[in-house]
Amino acid sequence: MSDFVGMNGAEERFGDTAAQREVRANDRQYVFHSWSAQDAIDPLPIAKGEGVRFWDYDGNEFLDFSSQLVNLSLGHQHPGMVRAIQDQAGRLATIQPAVANDVRSELAKRIVDVSFDGARSVFFTNGGADANEYAIRMARHHTGRNKVLARYRSYHGSTATAITLTGEPRRWANGTLDVGVVHFMGPYLYRSAFYAETPEQETERALAHLEQTIQLEGANTIAAIILETVTGTNGVLVPPPGYLPGVRALCDKYGIVMICDEVMVGFGRIGEWFAYQAFDVKPDLVTFAKGVNSGYVPLGGVVVSDAIHQTFATTPFPGGLTYSGHPLACASGVATFDIYKDEGILERVRDLGERVVAPRLAELAAKHPSVGEVRGAGMIWSLDLVRDRATREPLVPYNAAGEAAAPMAAVVAACKDAGLWPFAHFNRLQLAPPLIISEEDLERGLAIIDAALDVADSYYAGE
Amino acid sequence: MSDFVGMNGAEERFGDTAAQREVRANDRQYVFHSWSAQDAIDPLPIAKGEGVRFWDYDGNEFLDFSSQLVNLSLGHQHPGMVRAIQDQAGRLATIQPAVANDVRSELAKRIVDVSFDGARSVFFTNGGADANEYAIRMARHHTGRNKVLARYRSYHGSTATAITLTGEPRRWANGTLDVGVVHFMGPYLYRSAFYAETPEQETERALAHLEQTIQLEGANTIAAIILETVTGTNGVLVPPPGYLPGVRALCDKYGIVMICDEVMVGFGRIGEWFAYQAFDVKPDLVTFAKGVNSGYVPLGGVVVSDAIHQTFATTPFPGGLTYSGHPLACASGVATFDIYKDEGILERVRDLGERVVAPRLAELAAKHPSVGEVRGAGMIWSLDLVRDRATREPLVPYNAAGEAAAPMAAVVAACKDAGLWPFAHFNRLQLAPPLIISEEDLERGLAIIDAALDVADSYYAGE
Ligand SMILES: Cc1ncc(COP(=O)(O)O)c(C=O)c1O
Ligand SMILES: Cc1ncc(COP(=O)(O)O)c(C=O)c1O
Repeated sequence: MSDFVGMNGAEERFGDTAAQREVRANDRQYVFHSWSAQDAIDPLPIAKGEGVRFWDYDGNEFLDFSSQLVNLSLGHQHPGMVRAIQDQAGRLATIQPAVANDVRSELAKRIVDVSFDGARSVFFTNGGADANEYAIRMARHHTGRNKVLARYRSYHGSTATAITLTGEPRRWANGTLDVGVVHFMGPYLYRSAFYAETPEQETERALAHLEQTIQLEGANTIAAIILETVTGTNGVLVPPPGYLPGVRALCDKYGIVMICDEVMVGFGRIGEWFAYQAFDVKPDLVTFAKGVNSGYVPLGGVVVSDAIHQTFATTPFPGGLTYSGHPLACASGVATFDIYKDEGILERVRDLGERVVAPRLAELAAKHPSVGEVRGAGMIWSLDLVRDRATREPLVPYNAAGEAAAPMAAVVAACKDAGLWPFAHFNRLQLAPPLIISEEDLERGLAIIDAALDVADSYYAGE
Repeated sequence: MSDFVGMNGAEERFGDTAAQREVRANDRQYVFHSWSAQDAIDPLPIAKGEGVRFWDYDGNEFLDFSSQLVNLSLGHQHPGMVRAIQDQAGRLATIQPAVANDVRSELAKRIVDVSFDGARSVFFTNGGADANEYAIRMARHHTGRNKVLARYRSYHGSTATAITLTGEPRRWANGTLDVGVVHFMGPYLYRSAFYAETPEQETERALAHLEQTIQLEGANTIAAIILETVTGTNGVLVPPPGYLPGVRALCDKYGIVMICDEVMVGFGRIGEWFAYQAFDVKPDLVTFAKGVNSGYVPLGGVVVSDAIHQTFATTPFPGGLTYSGHPLACASGVATFDIYKDEGILERVRDLGERVVAPRLAELAAKHPSVGEVRGAGMIWSLDLVRDRATREPLVPYNAAGEAAAPMAAVVAACKDAGLWPFAHFNRLQLAPPLIISEEDLERGLAIIDAALDVADSYYAGE
């Protein structure tokens, strides 16, 4: 076979104002965008992507500290990924879920091989939301119970059950689409719901709160507890020591299925195949998407424990989708495993996270009063920005829009003007660059953030 | 750019029992399959697909009369599709929904251009289920109402709202996941719920039934009516003359959004871009997937009317997904439009449907007593098999399994043994070959079905 990968070579599009105008005009006229007031947006036409960078048609370059939507772990146009897709497209682009396919089988095996002890199989989906839909469905049928506990400050996707699980404002306008969902508080020491002052206290009290919730909702009505192992969009909330094992113990005590949503943090984001592996815990179901193939082809899935797999050994699983285990998607997942190994991705994420990012962010926190707290691991971090360190009042109110959000808009604009595409949410400036980022680019991006924090400081109102 | 397409050339895999064993073993050990009791299945490992055929590792050939899951309209490995994917993979495999992208804009424009007068934009999803989820969400927010009417004998997908919309047994085990859904009866003259004897009566009575349902549910509580324009899996139920315009009139009368689910029949399956175009009706929202790109890359979406688009002009749409408008998927959608035009797909579907399939199936019905009714259009047909033409008792009971389903299992086995992969559901043998099928292959497949109907006849119990 040819080793065709193709020239990304889109530089010829730079300065092509006719092309740019057409993309923009067609976008504005014909594309309905997620989460948006359609007349309030003017999406930037992108001409090219390569590695950790992308460019608009004017040739403006952006260093991507957001990995698109925290999916592009291997960066744009990784040759190994492109070749895997081109090869599979030439071999067999698609085949139905009801037959057996080599790359689908291979990817399922690779995923189970790096999963928890007792993991048995993989149910493939198209993305993160449907992965969570099917994990909940498995838990309900496995337990014969309907209720699901999910945390506030979480995002689990946007189909009916997934958006109801979600514990942030994107849920609000949707009402309660799945009547079985109940929300509880997770640990967040910096703004503790439990008046805790140490991580140990936060863990102990968050677990006590969870156990009370379980008892008051009726333990034997609860099918599952779902949580992001490390909360992503809603603050990079790293669980304090003992919290996840404590949740596991409660699940065991009450016969509840433990689901880790690893859509954002699975596949190396914190330097482990799955983030739960850093916290000494063994879930029953794990959902994934994004990092499994850097989003080169839509793909998600659920890792299923043997016990839950057995529930559907002789009773049919009541769910499915046309593109479950799609060969083109699975081929890019298999390539991801090869590339992670060849390039030592997990090791470099841990190394860069500890050696470069953590100390540099500690410096920024020391220098900029607006940085209330730094949280993170590996290649996902959050700067919790405040107006006042004493009161910890956020730089902008929860879910602020328009004028109220102006300080954060100014910080984001400072980043973009300096060529950095940030990952901002509410009062937080977050960092989630592709895992392949060089140390030099990491330093470059951190320097831009350093400068943007001067803007945040200008809104600081504390001592 | 190179014109690399790759050799499908998987013949070298024929007879490779080691490879076959590995695919099967890994599938059985690691892949969790849709809709299945995991220990009750033994999915056939497929080595190769080309055009309207695919092959197992023993070199057994199957003529695909099911287009996989009625998605593979352009057949396996269409060079134009493969090249479009390979090129886009080499250009820009993925980019986030929040920016503008050339192929995404282009595909949205092409879809709107062939849509109803008043169609404005396209919201892209990963498949059919989420397309329906988001169409319902748009209708609810547009109307400020919650209830949705859906038909029995329908399939709308498997995420929470979509499976609740579904009007067949796959819903049953899931209970009611979306409490706003109510089911009603559609027209089905052969087994009329309304004691009708002519298509005119069936239309009139089905519309009267729908209007009563609307009134009794409370017209001003109903956001939408969703229906498959031509019901696919559940029987290829072609709407009788006047039915769809009648539904449209009721929607107008009561301020209800009309949603056509064209996941299975859109993009040429009945010889029109969208099936509603054959029935003189203009919906408000249209959902699609499958045929939009033959499933080469997961893709679905919603065509949005201008009125509904305007509802989200200044108010944000509360929904979204990471892979909305995925470039690799959209590029294969754009290629689909080019290929349909170059190869005159719509014209050939209409021609072959009318000139070859309809008369040949009429012959089969005349010859085989077990054929109770023939229904269909273009490249989707159903043979409604019966034990008795007088009573119209189905060849196997509704939702039959195991021993009760043996007659249909025997018919399916007869097809497969003769090298035809059929599309069977309950008591029906359905036909949905790729739209590119040659007249010769169509005749070949119909001959196999002719022989398999002898098996069906052997269970016939009528006069
Ligand atoms: C933790 C988490 N779960 C689920 C999802 C939903 O994934 P998708 O957008 O692919 O449906 C996301 C997406 O951002 C996520 O971050
Ligand atoms: C009419 C119809 N709607 C929706 C769907 C669901 O599509 P998907 O399997 O891509 O979720 C299907 C799938 O067969 C379908 O036939």
